[in-house]
Amino acid sequence: MKILFDTTGLDLGVKEVIEGAILSKEELNIEPTLVGDEDIIRPILNEIGMDMNILDAKEIITNEEEPAFAIRRKKDSSIVVAFNNLNEYDAFISCGSTGALLAGGMFMAGRINNVKRAVLPTPIPTINGNTLLIDSGANMDVDADLLVQFAKLGTVLKQVTEGIEKPKVGLLNVGVEENKGNALTKEAFLKLKEADINFIGNIEGRDINKHLCDVLVCDGFVGNIILKNTEGLAGFIMTLLKSKVISNLSDNAKLEVMQSLSPVVKTLDYREVGGVLLLGLKKLVIKAHGASDRNAIKNAAKSALLMHENKLIDKIENSFRGEI
Amino acid sequence: MKILFDTTGLDLGVKEVIEGAILSKEELNIEPTLVGDEDIIRPILNEIGMDMNILDAKEIITNEEEPAFAIRRKKDSSIVVAFNNLNEYDAFISCGSTGALLAGGMFMAGRINNVKRAVLPTPIPTINGNTLLIDSGANMDVDADLLVQFAKLGTVLKQVTEGIEKPKVGLLNVGVEENKGNALTKEAFLKLKEADINFIGNIEGRDINKHLCDVLVCDGFVGNIILKNTEGLAGFIMTLLKSKVISNLSDNAKLEVMQSLSPVVKTLDYREVGGVLLLGLKKLVIKAHGASDRNAIKNAAKSALLMHENKLIDKIENSFRGEI
Repeated sequence: MKILFDTTGLDLGVKEVIEGAILSKEELNIEPTLVGDEDIIRPILNEIGMDMNILDAKEIITNEEEPAFAIRRKKDSSIVVAFNNLNEYDAFISCGSTGALLAGGMFMAGRINNVKRAVLPTPIPTINGNTLLIDSGANMDVDADLLVQFAKLGTVLKQVTEGIEKPKVGLLNVGVEENKGNALTKEAFLKLKEADINFIGNIEGRDINKHLCDVLVCDGFVGNIILKNTEGLAGFIMTLLKSKVISNLSDNAKLEVMQSLSPVVKTLDYREVGGVLLLGLKKLVIKAHGASDRNAIKNAAKSALLMHENKLIDKIENSFRGEI
Repeated sequence: MKILFDTTGLDLGVKEVIEGAILSKEELNIEPTLVGDEDIIRPILNEIGMDMNILDAKEIITNEEEPAFAIRRKKDSSIVVAFNNLNEYDAFISCGSTGALLAGGMFMAGRINNVKRAVLPTPIPTINGNTLLIDSGANMDVDADLLVQFAKLGTVLKQVTEGIEKPKVGLLNVGVEENKGNALTKEAFLKLKEADINFIGNIEGRDINKHLCDVLVCDGFVGNIILKNTEGLAGFIMTLLKSKVISNLSDNAKLEVMQSLSPVVKTLDYREVGGVLLLGLKKLVIKAHGASDRNAIKNAAKSALLMHENKLIDKIENSFRGEI
């Protein structure tokens, strides 16, 4: 498997991406190519004493730039160069601007036939396993038909990556009853019931972390707010615990608590899970978090490998064949 | 001040409401009247050895009933009887169906002139004080003009109840930049900037608990999901803490942690705050939580007293005078 690694966008810098690519090569037997500024990459490779293919790209698209505009204008950015060469590779892993990756993915890699939009599926932590939240931020304004597409995309992804035969699909809503919700979710409920998926009904906000379903469908506006609320609230609760509980403890008790607390913090950090696939594109494009380290980069490559070997793209193509 | 107390809808039963009304009378000097089934209320009053005015109402509207339908059909329910008599009282406190209270409020008590919808403002806990989330579930489908009205209603409520001169208003959104969001929030941003309020811009999901603003505006669908997500996630984190941290501790450390943990749990429970006002109506109608005890009922009465003495309804009328 040939994977393109974007060397830009990582908080820890270019070298950490390169180390991640090396780990991927050694442990996963994939063939890595780096995309980024060769004048920066080459000296690091020399220093490490490794050689690796490089696609030279001198520009960087930042998170602050308007994505579609940046894609058109920065022809020599790592993201544009990657998409221009993606036909020769099986996957692209980048910590760059999500918006630019989506724009590049839609305009340059292209959507799978009959798939109307690319989506961001983010795994939400639960007490046992995860629920895939779709869409977690790519599509702000959607209609009921799109929500049904999100459900189908998520279904195939869960089948391929976790081997779940009939993933349970829920609709994020304000009540469990069929007639609850806004105009969008009321219409979507009826269409999801008719769709060829395992739709189990509405899921309320209080049940998101209870793993009642494998795929949880919502528009990207609500999905983004939920994800960030989860992150913010986890931080808020940890702050409360530190100021109101831990600070009051005896030294011994404090030590005991701190030792067990870090796995809990890790469970709550949905970013730990690794990369998020831009789902619905003709190519495997994975957005890794800017705060990733070399292991997280390798984990993103591992996800890509799993999807590649299990023919995710082909299976989505099949699932959407004949779709209007 | 004359307050009507609905004796139905409380998990702890009729007697607990009556005790709450008695506390309100004794501590707040308000004049309580009970609305509910006199055949049930009278024996309890006799047992306690108290007398109190009663509006007899034999029926109960449950949470499962379609609100508008129930309001039309159950003429002898405590909620309908209360609204039919509300002109003679200053406020109505009920633990009954939120939907039925909203329907009754809109159709029977009526909206303040130029206020298009009644809203549910729920205080979200933060590390210091609270942010009022408006709307937290009354209005599923809204437009930008309605969001501006929510901002104005929340502004007056914060001024009256907390004495904040120029409450900061934020718009819940997916990014801080002006051009971020869905069609609704993009349009609302522009209108909020022009409105006669202290608009500070977009607030992201991760910052909801940081008290960056006093009033946080969103549609009732998103607001409901956020509130319930907050509740669910707090429960999930507590479960994680119990299974992964507390259960590993020595007995001494466990005891220490458990002693300090309960105020944290209380802080996270937005329901603890007491009742939620149905904001925008011509009368003070407060929905108290079904899990309330007598003290929570008294706290709801205390809120009502504060709003009454500070002429909340008059001030909203003034604020909306001349509004189109």
